Amino acid sequence: MNQAIRIAIAGHGNLGRGVEAALTKNPDMRLVGIYSRRPPATLKPLVAGTPVYSMDALNGHVGQIDVLILCGGSKEDLPQQGPALAAQFNTVDSFDTHALIPEYFAAVDAAATASRKTALIASGWDPGMFSINRVYGEALLPDGATYTFWGKGLSQGHSDAIRRVPGVAGGVQYTLPVAAAVEAVRSGTRPALSTRQKHTRECFVVLKDGADADAVRRAIVTMPHYFDEYDTTVNFISAEELSRNHATMPHGGFVIRSGNTTAASTQVIEYRLKLDSNPEFTASVLVAYARAVHRMHLAGQFGAKTVFDVAPGLLSPKSAAQLRAELL
Amino acid sequence: MNQAIRIAIAGHGNLGRGVEAALTKNPDMRLVGIYSRRPPATLKPLVAGTPVYSMDALNGHVGQIDVLILCGGSKEDLPQQGPALAAQFNTVDSFDTHALIPEYFAAVDAAATASRKTALIASGWDPGMFSINRVYGEALLPDGATYTFWGKGLSQGHSDAIRRVPGVAGGVQYTLPVAAAVEAVRSGTRPALSTRQKHTRECFVVLKDGADADAVRRAIVTMPHYFDEYDTTVNFISAEELSRNHATMPHGGFVIRSGNTTAASTQVIEYRLKLDSNPEFTASVLVAYARAVHRMHLAGQFGAKTVFDVAPGLLSPKSAAQLRAELL
Repeated sequence: MNQAIRIAIAGHGNLGRGVEAALTKNPDMRLVGIYSRRPPATLKPLVAGTPVYSMDALNGHVGQIDVLILCGGSKEDLPQQGPALAAQFNTVDSFDTHALIPEYFAAVDAAATASRKTALIASGWDPGMFSINRVYGEALLPDGATYTFWGKGLSQGHSDAIRRVPGVAGGVQYTLPVAAAVEAVRSGTRPALSTRQKHTRECFVVLKDGADADAVRRAIVTMPHYFDEYDTTVNFISAEELSRNHATMPHGGFVIRSGNTTAASTQVIEYRLKLDSNPEFTASVLVAYARAVHRMHLAGQFGAKTVFDVAPGLLSPKSAAQLRAELL
Repeated sequence: MNQAIRIAIAGHGNLGRGVEAALTKNPDMRLVGIYSRRPPATLKPLVAGTPVYSMDALNGHVGQIDVLILCGGSKEDLPQQGPALAAQFNTVDSFDTHALIPEYFAAVDAAATASRKTALIASGWDPGMFSINRVYGEALLPDGATYTFWGKGLSQGHSDAIRRVPGVAGGVQYTLPVAAAVEAVRSGTRPALSTRQKHTRECFVVLKDGADADAVRRAIVTMPHYFDEYDTTVNFISAEELSRNHATMPHGGFVIRSGNTTAASTQVIEYRLKLDSNPEFTASVLVAYARAVHRMHLAGQFGAKTVFDVAPGLLSPKSAAQLRAELL
């Protein structure tokens, strides 16, 4: 191994803290700084002694960072930060607004190409590892169908939505794949499945004093876009139970491709994640892709990239010869 | 789509016939010839009118084939054919003698580099898709353990071995993962598992007239390297039952990586294949990689390659922009 890859983190929420943790597991990388919009003195890095800066300090640190991992949100932060920072640094991000990916890619690509930087967007697990498995599945079994199931997992967006319902003091929402649907897909029969048939939603809600439970339940299960197309269960619990049993962020799911190579032969490919911590796993993916971005930049591959552009071997700290000998 | 990629097949056994079938599902490719050591008149191509040639004719067809898919065996055919044909053609093969991969890679690399050809070795599902998932798993969860389980599947090598036992008229062998071991691995506890704890072997054997069943069973279950480290079941069946129930070649298995991103968070990644036909799926993988090899050759990436060197997007007939919009 050559010198350690110098990694910096922009944004210190759950994802940024996950990147810190992941870096402790990857000795070929070194965390050279955490950048945040909050006052640096208020940040508590995981490893004592990690330099902490305000976001503005990044301008003065060009040349001291090999890859900057962007840990901001897709809605407010990345649309602005992604292109701006790719003009100065190699970057990796987890932009996950699927519908806006082409537009975001174009903006980051323009900035990174002009500055001869390498910027990997939309990494993580979905988009990310699930996307890769959708591409592999379709390419290996062109006569087939792909199904993505999510869960059991905590959905941040849906949890936020129930917390905005009048009468709700707190709550979380879990998305669950319907077991019968997963089994039908695994059987290779390529079933047609409606939104309602694929997933259910389960809410754990703490009511405000005096709130009407029935009214809250109705408001949740009929909420357009979020819940009305699903079978939703609402469980009312105490604030104490919420913090005791629902404080972690598990997630996961399945990408299943089934197809036929001939009429007689059905083939099924399944990729599954079972995650105790969604942000920590996403962070681990970002860190592995930071290694690839560093290598692609050294190889002169500039511009915006996605996980589809990254050969698997680039993610590993091992050499190509070692990978062939040990893992092929 | 530009002009169809011109594909040829060298070797017309189960794998070669699988490649023919796979090509009918990939309209961006065109089968321009099947090459065999058998007399061309004895070959029956799947699609009437497919040109059939003797292997020697390949020398005269340089420039007429974009990618040659090598469908010979790893023991007898590929060690000689791989380097020899990579000196004239872009190639894809399914070399699967894991221990000899470094040596085979070096020989093919020397030939392909000298001739400015692109030669992808050891493609298929193991080595191949399973290998990719071992690399991804290790890179995403460096603090973890990887487990590969095979089956339920027909093992060609073990079936051959039981057919060589005196008194055996015919037979097949299936490898089965031990369900309890798979569950233990899925739980994320990183169990230490012996060979015997991971897989069992099940044989279906037709005896020759007058053969001693007990002696045959003993000879099988104690056979060094093949069976002595496993719990093996031997079932005696009729020749009629063998051909009725055991004529297909199912296979599959699991690659499971479990690891911790922090002490509190266990993450589990699972990749699973359930294949009605092992050779047809392997063939489908070879065909998708032939597309990638054609593109890598056009991009000037010469020499021997493995699946670790191929970005996922190169396998798909879709453009990078289309993949980003549809599958990311």
